[in-house]
Amino acid sequence: MTTALQTDRYELTMIDATLANGRGLRPSVFEVFARRLPGARRYGVVAGTGRLLDAIEQFRFDHADLAFLRSERVVSDATLDWLADYRFTGDVRGYGEGEAYFPGSPLLVVEGSFAECVVLETVALSVLNYDSAVANAATRMVQAAKGRPLAEMGSRRANEDAAIAAARAAYIAGFRATSNLAAGAAWGIPTMGTAAHSFTLLHDSEEEAFQAQIDALGVGTTLLVDTYDIEQGVDTAIRVAGTGLGGVRIDSGDLVETAQRVRAQLDALGATDTRITVTSDLDEYAIAGLGASPVDAYGVGTSVVTGSGSPAAGMVYKLVAHQADDGSWVDVAKRSDGKASHGGEKTAVRTLVGGVATEETVFVGGNADASIGRALQVPLVQQGAIVDEHRGAAGVAAARERCAAAIAELPSDATRLARGEPVIPTVFR
Amino acid sequence: MTTALQTDRYELTMIDATLANGRGLRPSVFEVFARRLPGARRYGVVAGTGRLLDAIEQFRFDHADLAFLRSERVVSDATLDWLADYRFTGDVRGYGEGEAYFPGSPLLVVEGSFAECVVLETVALSVLNYDSAVANAATRMVQAAKGRPLAEMGSRRANEDAAIAAARAAYIAGFRATSNLAAGAAWGIPTMGTAAHSFTLLHDSEEEAFQAQIDALGVGTTLLVDTYDIEQGVDTAIRVAGTGLGGVRIDSGDLVETAQRVRAQLDALGATDTRITVTSDLDEYAIAGLGASPVDAYGVGTSVVTGSGSPAAGMVYKLVAHQADDGSWVDVAKRSDGKASHGGEKTAVRTLVGGVATEETVFVGGNADASIGRALQVPLVQQGAIVDEHRGAAGVAAARERCAAAIAELPSDATRLARGEPVIPTVFR
Repeated sequence: MTTALQTDRYELTMIDATLANGRGLRPSVFEVFARRLPGARRYGVVAGTGRLLDAIEQFRFDHADLAFLRSERVVSDATLDWLADYRFTGDVRGYGEGEAYFPGSPLLVVEGSFAECVVLETVALSVLNYDSAVANAATRMVQAAKGRPLAEMGSRRANEDAAIAAARAAYIAGFRATSNLAAGAAWGIPTMGTAAHSFTLLHDSEEEAFQAQIDALGVGTTLLVDTYDIEQGVDTAIRVAGTGLGGVRIDSGDLVETAQRVRAQLDALGATDTRITVTSDLDEYAIAGLGASPVDAYGVGTSVVTGSGSPAAGMVYKLVAHQADDGSWVDVAKRSDGKASHGGEKTAVRTLVGGVATEETVFVGGNADASIGRALQVPLVQQGAIVDEHRGAAGVAAARERCAAAIAELPSDATRLARGEPVIPTVFR
Repeated sequence: MTTALQTDRYELTMIDATLANGRGLRPSVFEVFARRLPGARRYGVVAGTGRLLDAIEQFRFDHADLAFLRSERVVSDATLDWLADYRFTGDVRGYGEGEAYFPGSPLLVVEGSFAECVVLETVALSVLNYDSAVANAATRMVQAAKGRPLAEMGSRRANEDAAIAAARAAYIAGFRATSNLAAGAAWGIPTMGTAAHSFTLLHDSEEEAFQAQIDALGVGTTLLVDTYDIEQGVDTAIRVAGTGLGGVRIDSGDLVETAQRVRAQLDALGATDTRITVTSDLDEYAIAGLGASPVDAYGVGTSVVTGSGSPAAGMVYKLVAHQADDGSWVDVAKRSDGKASHGGEKTAVRTLVGGVATEETVFVGGNADASIGRALQVPLVQQGAIVDEHRGAAGVAAARERCAAAIAELPSDATRLARGEPVIPTVFR
């Protein structure tokens, strides 16, 4: 399937009207930015860039797409011809995937004719808004876990295709693994899993179930011990597996109290190296609350794949400049209300003092000074050609490293969970 | 792409372990249900069923899928062989798409061997949890709009594939149209659109932009009037289009106050039939708040595609019964904590008195009495064959009708927006 119909109808009717009067061919600059950080968080994490580059490449109107548009009379025949030949020939530069961002950060700068750029609005925002929403939640969980490993296991709480993107975004933000096999196959993300309650319930006894799992996966596996009684479950697990059991998983109850009790029981049984994984409706606050508990790993579902209260990152795609008939550039911005935006093409630098970020500096127009810190935008598409290093599993691995490095650079207040102001200000120059 | 890897890794390792000890071939019954309604709403709306049936049909492990599983050593060679031949051969019955539901409603009953049923868990829940979350939000917006038309335009705030499913679910719940072209092409949903601020900003004047849109789309179109000054925008719109202008769209400001002012202005200009569409961050509460305002139509984005505060419906997929070695059926349910579930295969009837629903009656075991009301479960898959009437655009159209009929049957309290108890109780018999 092409990505070309993953588009709001008005993008095509705007092309139709502006090809008819010629304005659609005006050289233009669009920008993706967020007016604020969702949930009054301290910083954001850009995710989805590598997926967006694939979507841009696949953004072609095939025969079926065109037939649909023709049958629905969405655009004129002349515009159908233009769409049939469509491929993006412009330039895109933007924040590297995994980079931290702040309100007003010029996350993506898209240059080309109005018509070829405007049509990418919907798919660009769909990809970036969802993936960044997940990354924004995931990075806080990673901070809250303070080095303990996190696994993403929320596929069943997200649309089945979104689930793959969610696993990818969580991994970029620092999760260690996912339960989603398609994310492993598509993006090279480590996959993991334990067992469900149905597995235990299928068998004639918990002991029989545990034995079956160990026979198949070895004693290094993690046994789910809370189908019946947790204390009996732990006893049975160690009786069947021996003290070399890899781990136990607890998916219910008061996790603080239960983890303490299970740790004591495992130690008393001699299973001092058996790890405890907890998985019941965790979010960043619950993870922080388990910081003093003898928990070795977290499995996170619903909250990470739904952005932990902020399921869309709120990014917008706005025309910021276009060429006039005399060849001069006109900066533009909507100005009827409080949604005031800054017109003009922008370049962003993270100002650093002693290696610590102090300001998101956004230069409007051409006079950027990168010597004050770190230039944030990298080339993503050049004259229609995707810059390959951002794609595939290699792109994901690089984004994960970029994310860790960007967060290490932020002031220490960045990792506080409490709502507040962005940890550095955005200044337009 | 197959749907087979859109699956949690543990589903396959459970198959591996239970094929090895033979338990995986035990005839089993799984059930999808929700322990509660998200957001303390009064009723839920099932959505996603037609999409799930497509996913079940495409649930095959192709060569690439198997190669990935082999390279990652997820399961044994014997299990790889079993997966290579996999196709679901069992039965599924469940609530018709669009049906209202309540806590404990047996939404889907899946029968077959443990192994062939358990592997559908992830994709079944992904589809139903997301689509139903959208439908649950959308139905409240439809109620709040009290007959005024709603358009779904949230694609840019959802994952790009989820966006198509969201448009579909919102339509089933009673929305009139979507901005998403792919949803139109795939599911026969009416598509609509106006124009973006970028369209106006591209042109040298608002007048030039409006003229271009009218030239392309006719005077029946809807002009976006809030890029600069709304009052001037309305004046310009009528000057360019004449009093036959189809509509104006307002995307910012205090909508209650602005709608009143714009209506008065349009009427004074003689454009008494020009409709007012409002679109700025609406949810069911904002829509209800506009009930007394001279608004003709609503466009809803973020809130509907993200479930208006409840982005996943919280449905679970649980083993409720399996056959023992002696051929007898064993009802099962997890019992270690407060997540108490009801074991056993279930049949559901909506009890009606004078045509009004009074109870969700769930019969455990075989003695259902449908004479007390309306049987809620319909055949969806029979011995592996999908029941075709639930699929495609015809399935969507039928689901939309089913939804309207099911809600009409509920007590009038069902449409209250305030949090509360389910509008009818669920009783297990």
